[in-house]
Amino acid sequence: MPENPLRLLMNPRSIAVVGASNDFRKMGTIQALSILQDGYSGDVFFIHRKEKTVLGRPAFPAAADLPKAPDLAVLIVPSSSIAGLLADFGAIGTKRAIIITAGFKETGSAGRSMEEKIKSVASRHGIRFVGPNCLGIINSENSLNTTVAPFTTGPGRLGFASQSGTYVTQALPYLRKNGIRYSKAISLGNEADIDLVDALEYLGEDEQTRAVILYIEGIRDGRRFVEVARRITPRKPVVAQYVGGSASGARAGASHTGAMSGPDFLYDGIFKQAGILRVPTIEDLYAHGWTLATQPPLRGRRVGVVTNSGGPGTGIAYMCDHEGLEVPRFSESLQRDIRPLIEAHASAANPVDLTFDLGMRKLAVTLPEMIMKSGEVDALILHGIMHSGFMVEIFEHLRDYLQGVSYEAFLKGTRSVKEDAFQLPGKYPFPFLISSFFDDTDDCTRGYLDAGVPVFRSPENAARALGSLHRCRLIRERVLSNAPPLSQAQPAALEILGRAKAEGRGALDECEAKQVLAAYGVPVTREVKAVTCDDAVEAAKQIRYPVAVKACSWEILHKSGRGLIALNLKKEAQVQEAFDGIQKAAGKPTPVLVQEMVFGSREFLVGMTRFPGFAPCVVFGLGGVWTEIHRDMTLRQSPLSDSDAAEMLADLRSSRLLGEYRGMPEVKRGALAGILQAVGTIALLHPEIAEIDINPVMIRGDEPVAADALIGLKAED
Amino acid sequence: MPENPLRLLMNPRSIAVVGASNDFRKMGTIQALSILQDGYSGDVFFIHRKEKTVLGRPAFPAAADLPKAPDLAVLIVPSSSIAGLLADFGAIGTKRAIIITAGFKETGSAGRSMEEKIKSVASRHGIRFVGPNCLGIINSENSLNTTVAPFTTGPGRLGFASQSGTYVTQALPYLRKNGIRYSKAISLGNEADIDLVDALEYLGEDEQTRAVILYIEGIRDGRRFVEVARRITPRKPVVAQYVGGSASGARAGASHTGAMSGPDFLYDGIFKQAGILRVPTIEDLYAHGWTLATQPPLRGRRVGVVTNSGGPGTGIAYMCDHEGLEVPRFSESLQRDIRPLIEAHASAANPVDLTFDLGMRKLAVTLPEMIMKSGEVDALILHGIMHSGFMVEIFEHLRDYLQGVSYEAFLKGTRSVKEDAFQLPGKYPFPFLISSFFDDTDDCTRGYLDAGVPVFRSPENAARALGSLHRCRLIRERVLSNAPPLSQAQPAALEILGRAKAEGRGALDECEAKQVLAAYGVPVTREVKAVTCDDAVEAAKQIRYPVAVKACSWEILHKSGRGLIALNLKKEAQVQEAFDGIQKAAGKPTPVLVQEMVFGSREFLVGMTRFPGFAPCVVFGLGGVWTEIHRDMTLRQSPLSDSDAAEMLADLRSSRLLGEYRGMPEVKRGALAGILQAVGTIALLHPEIAEIDINPVMIRGDEPVAADALIGLKAED
Repeated sequence: MPENPLRLLMNPRSIAVVGASNDFRKMGTIQALSILQDGYSGDVFFIHRKEKTVLGRPAFPAAADLPKAPDLAVLIVPSSSIAGLLADFGAIGTKRAIIITAGFKETGSAGRSMEEKIKSVASRHGIRFVGPNCLGIINSENSLNTTVAPFTTGPGRLGFASQSGTYVTQALPYLRKNGIRYSKAISLGNEADIDLVDALEYLGEDEQTRAVILYIEGIRDGRRFVEVARRITPRKPVVAQYVGGSASGARAGASHTGAMSGPDFLYDGIFKQAGILRVPTIEDLYAHGWTLATQPPLRGRRVGVVTNSGGPGTGIAYMCDHEGLEVPRFSESLQRDIRPLIEAHASAANPVDLTFDLGMRKLAVTLPEMIMKSGEVDALILHGIMHSGFMVEIFEHLRDYLQGVSYEAFLKGTRSVKEDAFQLPGKYPFPFLISSFFDDTDDCTRGYLDAGVPVFRSPENAARALGSLHRCRLIRERVLSNAPPLSQAQPAALEILGRAKAEGRGALDECEAKQVLAAYGVPVTREVKAVTCDDAVEAAKQIRYPVAVKACSWEILHKSGRGLIALNLKKEAQVQEAFDGIQKAAGKPTPVLVQEMVFGSREFLVGMTRFPGFAPCVVFGLGGVWTEIHRDMTLRQSPLSDSDAAEMLADLRSSRLLGEYRGMPEVKRGALAGILQAVGTIALLHPEIAEIDINPVMIRGDEPVAADALIGLKAED
Repeated sequence: MPENPLRLLMNPRSIAVVGASNDFRKMGTIQALSILQDGYSGDVFFIHRKEKTVLGRPAFPAAADLPKAPDLAVLIVPSSSIAGLLADFGAIGTKRAIIITAGFKETGSAGRSMEEKIKSVASRHGIRFVGPNCLGIINSENSLNTTVAPFTTGPGRLGFASQSGTYVTQALPYLRKNGIRYSKAISLGNEADIDLVDALEYLGEDEQTRAVILYIEGIRDGRRFVEVARRITPRKPVVAQYVGGSASGARAGASHTGAMSGPDFLYDGIFKQAGILRVPTIEDLYAHGWTLATQPPLRGRRVGVVTNSGGPGTGIAYMCDHEGLEVPRFSESLQRDIRPLIEAHASAANPVDLTFDLGMRKLAVTLPEMIMKSGEVDALILHGIMHSGFMVEIFEHLRDYLQGVSYEAFLKGTRSVKEDAFQLPGKYPFPFLISSFFDDTDDCTRGYLDAGVPVFRSPENAARALGSLHRCRLIRERVLSNAPPLSQAQPAALEILGRAKAEGRGALDECEAKQVLAAYGVPVTREVKAVTCDDAVEAAKQIRYPVAVKACSWEILHKSGRGLIALNLKKEAQVQEAFDGIQKAAGKPTPVLVQEMVFGSREFLVGMTRFPGFAPCVVFGLGGVWTEIHRDMTLRQSPLSDSDAAEMLADLRSSRLLGEYRGMPEVKRGALAGILQAVGTIALLHPEIAEIDINPVMIRGDEPVAADALIGLKAED
């Protein structure tokens, strides 16, 4: 495996900055200050055409004048100068660059060709780069920060790859307030070279990084994304926010970083296949990522809840249930141990409700430790630990009565929790989350944040983050299989497709489509194509009644409701009538397909769609008349491993239909999974196929069978 | 309408506090300080058995010793003393009380009987009270605060009725930081007397209150809740968080305030019927409530988005789509006006992306005003306005270069936005929301908060709050009809039910159930009950083939899969065979129901369930074999108005099935709605009915018909 290009880019021994000056209002200057002031210890050179010094350091007129070739060039100059600068740096041997400048692909065709230009210059010189249209990187290990905002929080455990620079940098004060600390963060911009997948791979390999978060407007290489993610997610959690899945989101993303987006449905499937959790907001992305970066893995579903009031305890309990967790009633013996510590009227059952109690030690130490030792929980959420934040409020009321006592003196006279409370979470191998209405101005909140314990403002949001730990456990524990090696293309399929292509057709007819499917092992209905009425009657006899008769032409893609299909025919006269009816409805001589009737009350669909940037995608869902009503479907990229196919079956909201249900036997899951895999294989082996739609796949007894099928071909270029 | 009991309780001219002392660690003392220190200008008396003075004021040994009868008594003493104190206050003529003390119903049977005791004492003396087990009230109009935390934010527009005291009081510093200000807040506790519905009604009538939020663990009187809410919600938004709908949530709530909860499904239906929005977290409850309390109503779906960076703009656009809003592309002419204000590479299309720009005036004033004037949007979201919060960060980097310039001097030299930016939102009748990563320590955030403009930490959460404004618009604009007056009970139904009751039966048989339904106009299948095989054959002839034959006995509630039902019989021999088969399967002589076959591929269910505290609830959902697979159903309390029934039909996820679909005609909605209303009427007229389950209601052509029905009766007491 070649070395990830970010390894050197994030760890340069020397940097040249082009675009910084002595004007503190300029973005380039502000970014240069970040490099100079945040602790980076390598060499920093400035290039400036006019100034002799920049920020108190000597400035060089051009790259060629530098005393040595820097490992990294940071470029914050007008877009038209970038290509020339890259060539200059290339000439002296610099191999990495960060291009901050915007105004490329995201602005339309002129920008697009300028972006192509810089790509080719960089490629010629072997330069790998981040950007353009980005804010660069933060590496907390070597204190390198190329962004506009100071990075002052010190090293952390959370890696961030982002298609938004703002989320890397404008949020830094917010992150500090919430105790969230990056290991590394990368603003990717337009991804003309180094992309999200490179960054994901880099953060996956990075030892400092314990969890990875991704802000995504569009993925350019879906196949590599899933491959890389699947290597990471069994051992390191990855969480993503994706905002390109709606019309406005897609349009906004395109004008932001020129991202090519796809529907939510595509990304949901890809994330599942990759083992990536999806969250809806940037706040969740940070908070759940930080929880996963700091907390031990969850090993069960049992959550203990300790609070100083009933509302938050009830809210946490409710949300835990919704997240697939449990808040079990404690054993009688544990409750017996808890009861002496709490008011007689308070509950010891879980949630434990201490009720109003200004002595915080029970809430912060005694009760949690007792519960964690009990073996009755796998995680703990605490709400209500507070001190200085509440005391400063109370002090206002007491001031008149305290005869000149200062707030500081008053505070000293009150009890806070000691350092051991903040260290407690690390003592036991369980996730331990705090909920508090007090932010980091409260000494307790600050103590937890400094100790790397996540503090949530909303009790329910602590429970939701625990839900992410739970889902990560399921991802960690899932057994993945590899897709089988791609088989050879089947001669029968090649022949049918070749003929259709030669004839310039846009699709196969149903009979041909089923033959292609059958060539790859998909069970299809017994059927015979017939051109004359006599042939149709003969075919029906052969197949045995009852039969269906359908118009069979590649030009007729949708048959229902148009007189082109007759079902459940039981005798010759009906077949003749159907044949004549179809000829009439079609308006010209049209062959028919005489088909065995398949009965069953469970109908699914299996399909294949191609999305730009992704491998062919296989779709599985509820089929027949229910397709558009319930829109209950799921997707994966091909090739599908056994585990991928099995997960698809389990994904449907209506997956209970696959089991024994109302007198119907359990569906042969292996057979159904085989159809999904075959469709993926066909799409990979036959790139001329644009789409496949098998709907319905009927369940006859317990066996799936393709009752109708459509294969569309790509238009000739 | 009698005066709401909270009117006097929230506005007493004098208060007596029992349970305050000179020990500042005691809850009673802390609460007394809130009354004394937060600006309440009425008389405050203390009662203390031993102390001569409390908090510097004379203390009286007993209620009888007070100089006058206070309007309100606030009691924070052990639970065993409450009844006696209420009697004392009753004797001197006090009519309102707040009982803070816990240890009643929520603790079990001893507490429950103590709670009954205080109810009866209060009732004897005409005392109306809040509590026990609560923190009392905050009234920002007269500055009365009985809670443990200081209330310092001044008057606001948000009314809060809460079954958690913590959410009223512990959150106060959090609310202040987020600029959220109560009009009135009420901690209800166990609701032994004044309950959530009283508080809702009070806040609905209160002119200071512009929006109401409810924290709910359980509703005690569902019928009154909906009645009261429906009077309020067409003119004043009401938002609720409900946490009793899961197993752990229900258990936690019961031990918190003794609340009787019900499933989410019940509360979702009740909230819809009441016109109440439901939100999942306490943070959303505050934030969405505050947005609704401060913002003008939304009058369309079009959202303008202005940011200084692409990520937040994209996130907002995506979330707007998901909330049913639009982020329309601006007209060419508006874009032409915008373009000169922004960088060449930035987007003017909406979202407008100013990109990095330290001059905030364009972002805060020029662009928003241009867009609001254009007539192209109905609401605006701005992200990225910041000043001192960012400058304090930047200053750290500049310090070395500024030769001793102080932060204050530096800040003065930078441009912030002026007061007119914060007043801008009020100038146009559109909702106007801010998103910023900077909290109230930033002068811009503080400016907006002080001006009553909501500021969200997460761009997506601003869009979500706008979604609540959108849903409020739909609620405001819905046309509600009144339920028709309850009809007379039908003699046929009375007779059938009377007979079944006399026989001590637990249910009606299918034939009787259908007769009861038919008596109220529900279309049912043609059918005849037959005891002998010959009768069955005769009945089939009368009804006309094909027929169904089913075992018909009140003891057989579930027939399918047990040989007790035979469908689609086409001739005499089949009926005979079916009759014999059923006798065998039943194991004893059992009458059968011979029934016309109903064909149709759309099946629904209509049912009725009773929940403690609620009027009978009517359920409508997807029926037949799909019932448990999709769990697609909705609920309302009876009686159902025409609009209630119509909303139920529209509620289903699969409501498209009611329209013209795949060759099937549109369902006669009026007929289906009539079945829902009839079921509600039956439940109201016949309280001996425990449950009704009509499944399936088949759609034959476009007509619904009850094909199977079950009516269960209440067990004799």
